[in-house]
Amino acid sequence: GALGGLGLALGLWRRQAALAAAREDEEEKELRQRFMAPPVSGLRELRRRRRELRSRMELLIMETQAEVCRALTALDPGASFAVDSWERKEGGGGISCVLQDGEVFEKAGVNVSVVSGLLSEEAARQMRSRGKSLNAKDGKLPFCAMGVSSVIHPKNPHVPTMHFNYRYFEIEEADGTKQWWFGGGTDLTPTYLNEEDAVHFHKTLKEACDKHDPKLYPKYKKWCDDYFYIKHRGERRGIGGIFFDDMDSPSKEEVFQFVKSCAKAVVPCYIPIVKKHCHDSFTPEEKLWQQLRRGRYVEFNLVYDRGTKFGLLTPGSRIESILMSLPLTARWEYMHTPLESSKEAEILEVLRNPKEWVH
Amino acid sequence: GALGGLGLALGLWRRQAALAAAREDEEEKELRQRFMAPPVSGLRELRRRRRELRSRMELLIMETQAEVCRALTALDPGASFAVDSWERKEGGGGISCVLQDGEVFEKAGVNVSVVSGLLSEEAARQMRSRGKSLNAKDGKLPFCAMGVSSVIHPKNPHVPTMHFNYRYFEIEEADGTKQWWFGGGTDLTPTYLNEEDAVHFHKTLKEACDKHDPKLYPKYKKWCDDYFYIKHRGERRGIGGIFFDDMDSPSKEEVFQFVKSCAKAVVPCYIPIVKKHCHDSFTPEEKLWQQLRRGRYVEFNLVYDRGTKFGLLTPGSRIESILMSLPLTARWEYMHTPLESSKEAEILEVLRNPKEWVH
Repeated sequence: GALGGLGLALGLWRRQAALAAAREDEEEKELRQRFMAPPVSGLRELRRRRRELRSRMELLIMETQAEVCRALTALDPGASFAVDSWERKEGGGGISCVLQDGEVFEKAGVNVSVVSGLLSEEAARQMRSRGKSLNAKDGKLPFCAMGVSSVIHPKNPHVPTMHFNYRYFEIEEADGTKQWWFGGGTDLTPTYLNEEDAVHFHKTLKEACDKHDPKLYPKYKKWCDDYFYIKHRGERRGIGGIFFDDMDSPSKEEVFQFVKSCAKAVVPCYIPIVKKHCHDSFTPEEKLWQQLRRGRYVEFNLVYDRGTKFGLLTPGSRIESILMSLPLTARWEYMHTPLESSKEAEILEVLRNPKEWVH
Repeated sequence: GALGGLGLALGLWRRQAALAAAREDEEEKELRQRFMAPPVSGLRELRRRRRELRSRMELLIMETQAEVCRALTALDPGASFAVDSWERKEGGGGISCVLQDGEVFEKAGVNVSVVSGLLSEEAARQMRSRGKSLNAKDGKLPFCAMGVSSVIHPKNPHVPTMHFNYRYFEIEEADGTKQWWFGGGTDLTPTYLNEEDAVHFHKTLKEACDKHDPKLYPKYKKWCDDYFYIKHRGERRGIGGIFFDDMDSPSKEEVFQFVKSCAKAVVPCYIPIVKKHCHDSFTPEEKLWQQLRRGRYVEFNLVYDRGTKFGLLTPGSRIESILMSLPLTARWEYMHTPLESSKEAEILEVLRNPKEWVH
């Protein structure tokens, strides 16, 4: 009768609810395996909007974070990443993963942030290096910015520091049109020059670029040398890599595929270099020279880096995640000058006059 | 005869020349005793123009440099100051005195610079914090800027870092009128709070100010707290002191006398604190906290300090003399938070909420 029908319906509903719960458990498990923490936008929301570029980019930066953290932990098994999920009052949040004072790594930070809200016209202008004009409604522009950024400072002076950052922006103008662009880059900062490593690093990046357009690597290699320039020292921060900003052509899909290739190249361009040198012996003098180079790293990041400066000036930004890029320790000596034709002078020469590593 | 007269004249001339040479030797000797190096403008020129304020200020900054260097060396007898005289291609020069890696001092720099030349209107505007309008002839303004500046970083975490700077500017406008002003200050950055030291430091500065006008200390104490603010941390760099800029009243002579009193107060406000604590015992944890505070010092100097930023952006400025203010070593830890009611939390509280030390 009616009661039997109700019982049947109730049973069906219970079975469906149990299935849904099991599916959620599965998703939870998968998520825990794939990512360092639940994504800012929520896995369900990302699945629902899976065709949108914002969602695909958020998954890519989450995957990149996890991939890099796993690769680093594999090389420094005694150490582990502290994982902090944080929220931004004004909208969005992030996940910071930091490994500090390990055997192999002095400090390694891999940060994801996904923020949205309203930008002032002034802030929007600053965000975009080319400074395209934007039409705001009542002076405010809805925006969304997301990215993964990382700095890895190893202990051994024969293992270089590596930095990468891949990011995506959307700004909505008064008439509803959306401006979007990607930016990013990967670059290497060795304490001592190892030509073989430099070639491997640049070659891996060039291959990632060439798949999309052979013009990209030369252009973004030069941009990198120009961007990471410590003007008051007349030196680059490191031996470069690739750097780009405001990339909005040929199409959103194609630029995303390019950014994906670059993000996937991070582990293969860097990890073999760490493996090769992390057990190299070194002298106290070599450690000292590393500390002086760390000082230059701090100078670039605090005086010139656009991302850092923008972050420090933005109310509500998470300072600890921004300054995670600074090394654990650094040193400044007055008038330190390496001896002629020393290994220290050799790297300085390359920092003053960037080289082409692959042709 | 005529020959005898000539012989007499020649003898007289020889005697005068010998006397002049002896006087110059005397002057040389006096100079070597009084100063760390010959003044940028030359001692003879300074004597000739001894009534001009520019000359009197140059002698004051030279004396202050020598006084401070001598007081520091007396406390750290094994160490000595490296003295570098340098010239600026565009006009003027300076003398940098640096003591590095001593027993008592990790790094102590005392720098004098006396520069002159032509300023662009833009640079002149930036130089003057209040931004008074200036009438330039053909867009260029003849200027003269001189000052003594110093940062002392001791080794022992119970001895605070001290900074001072006293400076004088002149800018000549198109119609020949000269704008002039003084700036300066002395401030203390302890790793741990010692109330007695804080009171001694502020009291000595207050007494120097009060001789001139009782309104000066409260005004310049507040200016100091406001200026040395690390905005992104919500902390001051230290426990303050005095700071002022654009001081051009009541009269040139009176402001000079005030600046002289402040400069003369540097040794008595700081040296007794060094003497008191330079043999205090300390733990590795205390040294670590000092290194973290050094990191904050670097953050302030590279991100906010107007003098440093102006220096780094000015072509032809001597970078090593500007960045001499940075500590020998510094440290950045991710998410370092002192325990509640620890000594580390105690100083943070004062850096977040500045106190009145003397009434």
